Amino acid sequence: MAEIRIEKTAHPKEKPDSGNLSFGKYFTDHMFVMNYEKDKGWFDPRIVPFAPFEISPAAMVLHYAPEVFEGLKAYRRPDGSVQLFRPQENIARMNRSAERMCLPQIDPELFMEALLALVRTDSDWVPAGEDTTLYIRPFLFATDPKLGVHAPSMCTFAIILSPVGPYFPEGVNPVKIFIEKEDVRAVRGGTGFAKCGGNYAGSLRAGERAEANGFAQVLWLDGVEKKYVEEGGGMNIMFKIKDKVVTPALLGTVLPGITRKSVIEMLKSWNIEVEERLVTLEEILTGIKNGDVEEAWCCGTAAVISPIGEFATEDEQYTIGGFKSGPLALKLYHALTDLQFGRTEDSFGWTVRVA
Amino acid sequence: MAEIRIEKTAHPKEKPDSGNLSFGKYFTDHMFVMNYEKDKGWFDPRIVPFAPFEISPAAMVLHYAPEVFEGLKAYRRPDGSVQLFRPQENIARMNRSAERMCLPQIDPELFMEALLALVRTDSDWVPAGEDTTLYIRPFLFATDPKLGVHAPSMCTFAIILSPVGPYFPEGVNPVKIFIEKEDVRAVRGGTGFAKCGGNYAGSLRAGERAEANGFAQVLWLDGVEKKYVEEGGGMNIMFKIKDKVVTPALLGTVLPGITRKSVIEMLKSWNIEVEERLVTLEEILTGIKNGDVEEAWCCGTAAVISPIGEFATEDEQYTIGGFKSGPLALKLYHALTDLQFGRTEDSFGWTVRVA
Ligand SMILES: Cc1ncc(COP(=O)(O)O)c(C=O)c1O
Ligand SMILES: Cc1ncc(COP(=O)(O)O)c(C=O)c1O
Repeated sequence: MAEIRIEKTAHPKEKPDSGNLSFGKYFTDHMFVMNYEKDKGWFDPRIVPFAPFEISPAAMVLHYAPEVFEGLKAYRRPDGSVQLFRPQENIARMNRSAERMCLPQIDPELFMEALLALVRTDSDWVPAGEDTTLYIRPFLFATDPKLGVHAPSMCTFAIILSPVGPYFPEGVNPVKIFIEKEDVRAVRGGTGFAKCGGNYAGSLRAGERAEANGFAQVLWLDGVEKKYVEEGGGMNIMFKIKDKVVTPALLGTVLPGITRKSVIEMLKSWNIEVEERLVTLEEILTGIKNGDVEEAWCCGTAAVISPIGEFATEDEQYTIGGFKSGPLALKLYHALTDLQFGRTEDSFGWTVRVA
Repeated sequence: MAEIRIEKTAHPKEKPDSGNLSFGKYFTDHMFVMNYEKDKGWFDPRIVPFAPFEISPAAMVLHYAPEVFEGLKAYRRPDGSVQLFRPQENIARMNRSAERMCLPQIDPELFMEALLALVRTDSDWVPAGEDTTLYIRPFLFATDPKLGVHAPSMCTFAIILSPVGPYFPEGVNPVKIFIEKEDVRAVRGGTGFAKCGGNYAGSLRAGERAEANGFAQVLWLDGVEKKYVEEGGGMNIMFKIKDKVVTPALLGTVLPGITRKSVIEMLKSWNIEVEERLVTLEEILTGIKNGDVEEAWCCGTAAVISPIGEFATEDEQYTIGGFKSGPLALKLYHALTDLQFGRTEDSFGWTVRVA
């Protein structure tokens, strides 16, 4: 395995006030970069000062979007040390996303070493304020300076770091979600399960419309019949229906969230039944009205657990549990964040210390 | 309207041999660039030497792919002058694509002026060899250095130029097309009608598989039922069925090709009936077998008209017209290219001279 070369910045930046972080606006002093050429494979893994890339105007990434990314966090423990949450899962998902986009695979060991080495280098940047973390963004894109539409043969893989505060201003208070019936995020056979740029570009318009009307995000329905619930704008979705938790199954259109997976495993460890299956919008809206749907929440790395207080369409509102954060959502939020921040013992073996 | 500043290169490149051009591999000496910020609008339109962009590692385009593009050509006329083909259509389509991606609109007059000024600046690069042209690639992407998933507020618009030869090595000889039944390009409510990066990234895998098996491109079916024919990998598709020409209607999933539009108008001017409607794969395959489908071709800026000699699935081949280029496809190819290259009078008013 190639050794990671480290070139430290001569001009460390001032760190932002940790009480005033928004999401993904400030970046640390360093980044990890590595290049790929088809004949050579990956080469020159390095940690260098955070600085612009030089990219050819003909580079594929600017035209055809062969690009995938990941998102995870580094957490400051009470003892001052730093840890990651299930980074192996992000590494595996990035390689699955890359396969769908004809982008090259990255050796999981080298990927892990890059994550640890970079966070170690910028460990001063992991904030210590409540609900603050160091967001880690690995990304991979094609740079072939050619306009033919073909599988890429030149790529850049990079990791950047951003100290972040809570994703939603609401924090763990309930948010409103707009049921999107016009735009569609994914369809089977498409790229829904991959964390690729195109999925997000296509979802901007609906997200903006929702935000302009006071909603935290949209609820995506399936692309075929607009009958089944799929996920939130950038998070998976779960419902507490009587004494079970129900969440849309992973059938190729939904992003397989690592928070989703962890919540499912945690619920099962608590002996709560979880159903991964098709979930119709009809079932949810009826269930909200008759009280069977007791809670609903989104889950994802950025906001962890985000209770849903209301679903809305153009002309109807469906309020859940009196627009209060439900007990199970709150319990999950605390159990997960306690584990992520190292405030409780990690009985699942999910955390990885940055030595 | 802002004036376009011109900064000429001090180091003109050597031009490639016009008999040996592939597609989108060589670039001319200059490019057009202009920047956008939400508060300022578009600013600093300029023609500058072709050179790499400096792009922040956090730039939206590298993560969420808010990016759209266009493709048109400059043609060398027999009298040595240069002309474009329906550039207004590309300008209008780019603005429609941009709207879908929450990217800003570009003033059509300024866009046209930029096209003309850039091609004028590099007019020596318009090749004169048979079937060679100067491919024009306008593109627009978001550069906000922020990881939040929101509508862009900083963008770059650029135009680059590439002297190109025939798109397919087959030229106007028939190609084989693979009927793609696994991957899906577009679904209604998605981004199929927009010329945006994500559509192409998502189609790379199917295209590669097809190419590896000797096919020129794939035939995309609708994303809902995989029952209807939509388009070729990077071209629209048409069928001559008895004495009519049939082509899939534009219902939001198919790219509204400018060649498609021009062919339809040309056929109508020849009193040939054209039906834009839903076309089932079943109808086509049955029609090929019983001879009703007499010809099939793809059409697009890159390859103009590309006759289809065979459709294939994993286990069946459907040969059309004895794998020969049909008379109507050839007639269209010659009529269109004669008009585009200025070898015949442009009775449609489709061409725009670069003074
Ligand atoms: C579309 C989408 N769904 C779900 C998720 C949740 O995934 P994870 O829990 O791995 O962050 C994300 C990413 O954060 C996402 O972008
Ligand atoms: C997916 C797709 N369909 C169709 C076309 C044909 O469009 P046009 O005739 O405008 O080149 C293109 C672009 O060239 C394309 O990329």
